Amino acid sequence: MEQQLVQQLPSTGVGSKLPHLAECVYLDYNATTPIYPEVSEAMKPYIYELFGNPSSVHAYGQQTRAAVDKARQQVAGLINCSPDEVAFTSCGTESDNWALWGAVMARRGSSSSSSSSSQQGLPHVVTSQIEHPAVTACLRSMAEQGLCTFTAVPVDSQGLISVTDVVSALTPNTVLVSIMHSNNEVGSLQPVAAIAAAVRQAAPGCLVHSDAAQSMGKVAVDVQQLGVDLLTLVGHKFGAPKGVAALYIRQGVQLANLLSGGSQERGRRGGTENVLLLAGLGAAAELAQLEADATAAHMRSMRDRLAAGLLAALPRHLVRINGPQDSALQLPNTLSISVKGLSAPSLLQMLAQKLAASAGAACHSSHGPAVSPVLQAMRLHPDYAVGTLRLSTGRHTTADEVDRAVTLIVGAARKQGLEFGSSGSSSDTANGTAAH
Amino acid sequence: MEQQLVQQLPSTGVGSKLPHLAECVYLDYNATTPIYPEVSEAMKPYIYELFGNPSSVHAYGQQTRAAVDKARQQVAGLINCSPDEVAFTSCGTESDNWALWGAVMARRGSSSSSSSSSQQGLPHVVTSQIEHPAVTACLRSMAEQGLCTFTAVPVDSQGLISVTDVVSALTPNTVLVSIMHSNNEVGSLQPVAAIAAAVRQAAPGCLVHSDAAQSMGKVAVDVQQLGVDLLTLVGHKFGAPKGVAALYIRQGVQLANLLSGGSQERGRRGGTENVLLLAGLGAAAELAQLEADATAAHMRSMRDRLAAGLLAALPRHLVRINGPQDSALQLPNTLSISVKGLSAPSLLQMLAQKLAASAGAACHSSHGPAVSPVLQAMRLHPDYAVGTLRLSTGRHTTADEVDRAVTLIVGAARKQGLEFGSSGSSSDTANGTAAH
Repeated sequence: MEQQLVQQLPSTGVGSKLPHLAECVYLDYNATTPIYPEVSEAMKPYIYELFGNPSSVHAYGQQTRAAVDKARQQVAGLINCSPDEVAFTSCGTESDNWALWGAVMARRGSSSSSSSSSQQGLPHVVTSQIEHPAVTACLRSMAEQGLCTFTAVPVDSQGLISVTDVVSALTPNTVLVSIMHSNNEVGSLQPVAAIAAAVRQAAPGCLVHSDAAQSMGKVAVDVQQLGVDLLTLVGHKFGAPKGVAALYIRQGVQLANLLSGGSQERGRRGGTENVLLLAGLGAAAELAQLEADATAAHMRSMRDRLAAGLLAALPRHLVRINGPQDSALQLPNTLSISVKGLSAPSLLQMLAQKLAASAGAACHSSHGPAVSPVLQAMRLHPDYAVGTLRLSTGRHTTADEVDRAVTLIVGAARKQGLEFGSSGSSSDTANGTAAH
Repeated sequence: MEQQLVQQLPSTGVGSKLPHLAECVYLDYNATTPIYPEVSEAMKPYIYELFGNPSSVHAYGQQTRAAVDKARQQVAGLINCSPDEVAFTSCGTESDNWALWGAVMARRGSSSSSSSSSQQGLPHVVTSQIEHPAVTACLRSMAEQGLCTFTAVPVDSQGLISVTDVVSALTPNTVLVSIMHSNNEVGSLQPVAAIAAAVRQAAPGCLVHSDAAQSMGKVAVDVQQLGVDLLTLVGHKFGAPKGVAALYIRQGVQLANLLSGGSQERGRRGGTENVLLLAGLGAAAELAQLEADATAAHMRSMRDRLAAGLLAALPRHLVRINGPQDSALQLPNTLSISVKGLSAPSLLQMLAQKLAASAGAACHSSHGPAVSPVLQAMRLHPDYAVGTLRLSTGRHTTADEVDRAVTLIVGAARKQGLEFGSSGSSSDTANGTAAH
């Protein structure tokens, strides 16, 4: 279907310029992506025509039931599982929360009594210090409610988690290991397959979950190769709208329901199906599968052009790139770059109408800048953390955007009073270098 | 805004015919509504152009932040509360689950220890026997997990809950009363304001929640008049897409989070905002407010025409109408009609391509028909329950549709071998009567 759409809309494919991205350079694909034009097209019938409740036996219901089934097949195709193993949710947070809560409560329910009020008897979860708040906040909340305990393993200075650390953190009560597939801020790809294999050997009853929110549409995610039991994917990170996601649940895995209601999702998640956005999620999944190599190559080329441009134009002794040095361990689209002496939040505020990107710290006027937990876990020096920009390229990033971004960032750094020294300090040079 | 849209689209207002509803008569508005044309229009910019993450400080993020803020104001306007009291969710099930779980866990967390493993010390919830599965299944699940206990009060034969029964069910441990605003199957409007007032007097610390999923866009729902602490509303029951809903949380109410993650919804519900569908929810809320009287009058007129047509054409001694006899206690759009000797599931299966409606029982070949818990709670005789059709009119129902529905139902009943006796048995009569 997408193949057809790509033909109908010849100017909408990988690398094409989207008209609504013309004014302000968009390098924040890790925060959210535009809805890809082919995805909007796939959603159209469900905005204007097909609307029945998929649970209804009549014609209107059967039309949308078919749409939900199709989306499930498309998502299953992307991650290489059976459609029955895909449960739809409303967002990555719900998928992550469900994996954690579901694993903890399934074990809690199966224990001999509900009076396991001592810390010792509680289900235990192993996670890392660089997970998304959808994992860390949920675990903190469950721990405060006396439902589980958890251990967050550290990362090295490149943002990588060690298999040994994860295995060492296992206890006889560990019911779940939850390790992200790739990090949203520095792009580090975690050794999830090795972790799953090691956990399966060390603790056979323990489930393994991976939050792959940032990986879909950027690198291959194959649940068979990974060997995980549970995996989170999120539509708006690869061209579908915000408000739709999925949780892969391996056949046979016992997971308590997070949302209880009707019999939707084979009794695993109540709530009338989000037909419109599921049509979008399915189309985005199929597109990601069709275009996997082309999209990754384009993202990487744009990201590398951006890195080269910035490195050439900014004073080298004040700059560092965060994340794995080995490009095979890194997302193809993410550039986390720190400039000592720069305030990234101020820079982005100044450029808010011209450049869209993220900072490694947030402005909190009362307490000074709040450095991201990820950069803290990597023990990045605060001088660099405050000057950290997260720039993420995507399917529709253009070379022109990248070059404009370099000029804008260098110009803003100059205005902030960054000392450029004698070389690489003119914006001409910045432009020239970026264009190679 | 909708006013403008109504002007732009002159043929899309209350009572207008939607082209995609032409072939199969749609009388299943309680299951889900079509997306109203004005709502699709309001969503358009967020499908094709505006896509930023509302948490981002840049231009793209601020555009969608404004959309989310606007939707919150529109929903607050519909139910007469402050925008800060509206939290967005993904569906009615999530809103209901959140109200229940949040009230139970907030109390559990505030009790002196987490070791309240005896039934006696657990938080207690009062609900009714005719709630949606999003309430009943969630309570059963929490009770099985040892997190709470609950009491479901009965209803009378008209599907009405008694204030006295609710108050009698309160215990010193009751943390929440959850009573639906209107019933989805028989349309009974519950005395929620009286219940809230009585509960507040009898148990001052106890919260009151109402699931108003079926009421929005049909009758006035004013949280100040109702005096509730928590209220569920669901977009796809009044012209917005499936996949978006809200929970009203009165200022000051302590509610544990159901989904924990980022700081969205003022820290109460993690997850990137569903911008596209929120634009739709907001537009639907504003439309419901603007058109309240006109929509209700149209629904009522169509429903009454339908009832008159069916009563005239079907054998009167085999037919009963379910729900409150007093029309002031009933939704304006719902007709639950039972025909002794009819199999409603078979009839709807037979008419699946011509008439969209719901049955009061589901076909389960192995165990015979499964009668709905609502009709069971009303102690409707099984002979009638199996022959129960739920017909629900809406904003775009036409007289022509109603008349076709009467003909279709009467014809199908005849095919099923229903004995019509001497009068009112010809389809001409059915048509003629329905047209008055």
